[in-house]
Amino acid sequence: MKPQVLLYDTTLRDGTQGEGISLSVDDKLKIARKLDGLGIHYIEGGWPGSNPKDMEFFLKARELHLEHATITAFGSTRRAGIDVEEDDNLQKILDSGVKAVAIFGKTWDFHVLKALKTTLEENLNMIFESIQYLKRAGLEVIFDAEHFFDGYKHNPEYALEAVQKAQEAGADCIVLCDTNGGSMPHEIYDIVSHVVSKLSVMVGIHCHNDCELGVANSLAAVRAGARHVQGTINGYGERCGNANLISVIPNLQMKLNYSCVDESQLKNLITVSKYVHEIANQVPPNNQPFVGRSAFAHKGGMHVSAILKHPETYEHIPPESIGNKRRVLVSELSGQSNVLFKAKEWNVKLDKHDPQSRKILDKIKEQEHKGYQYEAAEASFELMVREGLGELKEFFQFDHFKIFIERDEADVLRTEAVVKLRVNGEVVHTVSEGNGPVNALDNALRKALEQYFPLIKKMYLSDYKVRVLDETDATASTVRVLIESSDGKEKWSTIGVSANIIEASWYALIDSVRYYLMKHEEEIEIVQSSKPEQRVGVVNH
Amino acid sequence: MKPQVLLYDTTLRDGTQGEGISLSVDDKLKIARKLDGLGIHYIEGGWPGSNPKDMEFFLKARELHLEHATITAFGSTRRAGIDVEEDDNLQKILDSGVKAVAIFGKTWDFHVLKALKTTLEENLNMIFESIQYLKRAGLEVIFDAEHFFDGYKHNPEYALEAVQKAQEAGADCIVLCDTNGGSMPHEIYDIVSHVVSKLSVMVGIHCHNDCELGVANSLAAVRAGARHVQGTINGYGERCGNANLISVIPNLQMKLNYSCVDESQLKNLITVSKYVHEIANQVPPNNQPFVGRSAFAHKGGMHVSAILKHPETYEHIPPESIGNKRRVLVSELSGQSNVLFKAKEWNVKLDKHDPQSRKILDKIKEQEHKGYQYEAAEASFELMVREGLGELKEFFQFDHFKIFIERDEADVLRTEAVVKLRVNGEVVHTVSEGNGPVNALDNALRKALEQYFPLIKKMYLSDYKVRVLDETDATASTVRVLIESSDGKEKWSTIGVSANIIEASWYALIDSVRYYLMKHEEEIEIVQSSKPEQRVGVVNH
Repeated sequence: MKPQVLLYDTTLRDGTQGEGISLSVDDKLKIARKLDGLGIHYIEGGWPGSNPKDMEFFLKARELHLEHATITAFGSTRRAGIDVEEDDNLQKILDSGVKAVAIFGKTWDFHVLKALKTTLEENLNMIFESIQYLKRAGLEVIFDAEHFFDGYKHNPEYALEAVQKAQEAGADCIVLCDTNGGSMPHEIYDIVSHVVSKLSVMVGIHCHNDCELGVANSLAAVRAGARHVQGTINGYGERCGNANLISVIPNLQMKLNYSCVDESQLKNLITVSKYVHEIANQVPPNNQPFVGRSAFAHKGGMHVSAILKHPETYEHIPPESIGNKRRVLVSELSGQSNVLFKAKEWNVKLDKHDPQSRKILDKIKEQEHKGYQYEAAEASFELMVREGLGELKEFFQFDHFKIFIERDEADVLRTEAVVKLRVNGEVVHTVSEGNGPVNALDNALRKALEQYFPLIKKMYLSDYKVRVLDETDATASTVRVLIESSDGKEKWSTIGVSANIIEASWYALIDSVRYYLMKHEEEIEIVQSSKPEQRVGVVNH
Repeated sequence: MKPQVLLYDTTLRDGTQGEGISLSVDDKLKIARKLDGLGIHYIEGGWPGSNPKDMEFFLKARELHLEHATITAFGSTRRAGIDVEEDDNLQKILDSGVKAVAIFGKTWDFHVLKALKTTLEENLNMIFESIQYLKRAGLEVIFDAEHFFDGYKHNPEYALEAVQKAQEAGADCIVLCDTNGGSMPHEIYDIVSHVVSKLSVMVGIHCHNDCELGVANSLAAVRAGARHVQGTINGYGERCGNANLISVIPNLQMKLNYSCVDESQLKNLITVSKYVHEIANQVPPNNQPFVGRSAFAHKGGMHVSAILKHPETYEHIPPESIGNKRRVLVSELSGQSNVLFKAKEWNVKLDKHDPQSRKILDKIKEQEHKGYQYEAAEASFELMVREGLGELKEFFQFDHFKIFIERDEADVLRTEAVVKLRVNGEVVHTVSEGNGPVNALDNALRKALEQYFPLIKKMYLSDYKVRVLDETDATASTVRVLIESSDGKEKWSTIGVSANIIEASWYALIDSVRYYLMKHEEEIEIVQSSKPEQRVGVVNH
């Protein structure tokens, strides 16, 4: 039997302390449902005593009917010098209707004297009475020993006395917090070992990432006997973030042989990570351990030829085990083997000794020099390769586009785009409005093509990203636009680069449509316009 | 005396294996100069045998005249079955003219048999002869024991034999590599301890971040006796990256009491980190440990009131010690204390009990709801607060703008912007071209204002960032534009949010100019146009 470690997620509370992280009540409910699905044991929903939005969450969370997780409220020990019954923050916890609560209290003498401005004795009373009060109300009580490690380093007796007081009061779990994130893994290991030997209740750990050691410190604590780990999805949190549960879980379960979630749930780690990034409106870091797009991406030519033979030569775990997948990147650093690997994926016949393969590599270098990066735009890359091989059918010819944007005296904004192109000999000339220049251009282009290729109605742009390449030149610099498109089943990404954001967007838009038409060439029958005046010339809308 | 740890930077080689990281020869030279300034001991410039661009770097690097660092080449042991003199990769190392080299060799039997497809015996010969050959040529030789930890776990005898062979051949340092990044800190500690006890030469460590443990593993190795640490600036590198030297250095030096760089150099960590992000064209992660913008940013209202009293309550080190600074974030989560803190910075008098302070908080919430985030746009925030207080002087009134973009049959692109506004009762109407719509708008706006406020000639846009807020709606989603401006001395950031990228950019542009004029109000004398026809009406260009 693997030892069980309980997971306590605080994405919804500590996570939202991170810069740029803001979640609505509805966002929080969605994330809670997802965390429950993953098998997280406790979901900290917020601090009912500090924020009316958090109280709303707890009221609505009752209707979630979670399968595994216990919704937990956060709060503090009572204020100094008052009765527990008078403490508004404790009262709000009871009002929130939760079955479990984490309350934090001070265990660092310096904080008691300087931040709380009360006596060491009164602080111990605050811890004891607050826990006792909540226990008597029937709650499961987790005590978060704030700044425990800093406290222990300065005054080990007082820090220990504080957590012993919490145990006496009936706390179900005592969580040692490295609140400022400044401790080293060996310190965490030594101090947790000592505390575990002194307490009889379950000990937990709460780490921050200020020294880039949030995950390592959490693992060290578990190896020292902690059996409850607090953290956040993707490591969101104040300053440099909290311990990242998305990394803590596979490390504990796949490397250190503890049990956290069902084995079958590990495959969902990547989905949960991406889902939370999406809801929190964060761009997922490519290099995020375990779940990032690049986590199993191979760029060096030598690595690529080795992983094609034996994946374990350059992969520490099988990417599929956590729902990720292997990728081979195409870039100027890559040998022929990467291009050949890609070509094989598309059933394109490229010969190692063929000068055409060499020519395509040269073209990649030239485009990369302009600012193109095909790593994230494989559809544009495939178009380029097939074009190089003379395999690409052109479904339409571009003539021109125009865009008009006006913001008038009444602050009303109007954006129109005109597109003129030729399909199968017919001239198509369309105009459309949009809520921005790229949207207007996209609308006009679709309007032009949909009548010939009704298929295009199925596709839509699912993501649009802009990157300024040479940021020192500000608005006069080169712009890289990445567009992700989808037809509800497949997704594909295209790229455009130009000094002009509109032109860069245009290249990526056009590539997206060309790629979709190429992939569905066999289904395409060009629809001839039925009205005679349209067949000979302009289709005007 | 603190024990010395040597730093070996491979940003220019392993770093460029990271997805999206690409450096020109000139970029590499700039970074090398910066690393030398920081006090890095070895700078790995590239692999002369694999890449002509790398060879060019080594030729040009001779003219850098570095003060501290040794420029180092990377390469592999000779190929199986040939003489060292015949090996092109070893020859190119000698041709590169470096004084030090790191060559990697296999120490995992599985790799020898399955990837190299040679015998265990021949691999040992390859290691021995290659090192001996380079030593006889007068080079300092570092042996990178590739996959050492995986090798040791599978076949400790062979892994040890391989590094002992390297020592026999005269290697100056033997670096144990966790190439796949899958090892745990306690394994690293145990294995390094054992190897250190078996070897007499210096032992080094090379870690990857696949388990989010790259920094922790490097620290564990040093605590076990390693005295040479390989890594990259900001942790760039293949897959999830290499050990991040920007975190390794302060941890070793400030927390574990080793000496890496001069004490006085620690203050430059943030500059080096940002510089490399800029050259590599990467957006610096806000939450990057030690050097991120958020690393010492406080959002929770309670934290804020405590750090104002005693910074050490929520900061593990003084931010200034590594060149960073404390920030107080303004957001919907923040209490009044954050707004008051900001206001104090600007010498704005806000009273805690004043309903105006409350009104400004409400306005922040409303703007944040629209997608505004003032954390990175303090100039826009200050404008909003001063406007709320009725303190803001308006220097001009906006009338309208128009933008025309056309891409014609010959693929020529034209972009023009027209701006009409009023200054001091006079109508100003200007038009300008640009290499994109925002650039054209910026040019037309300046043209209009410069004649009245010559001061504006000094300011320029130094950064322009676009973020799509609701990415699921693609080109129809809300766009947030951040503009950073500078006058060569000061920098300030402004924000605009709209469904239309042009309108969002316009808001940020206008704020940038308004802010600059506000800050220099005392220097401003409105220049009246001298020509009578201009004084009454339109100034046309």
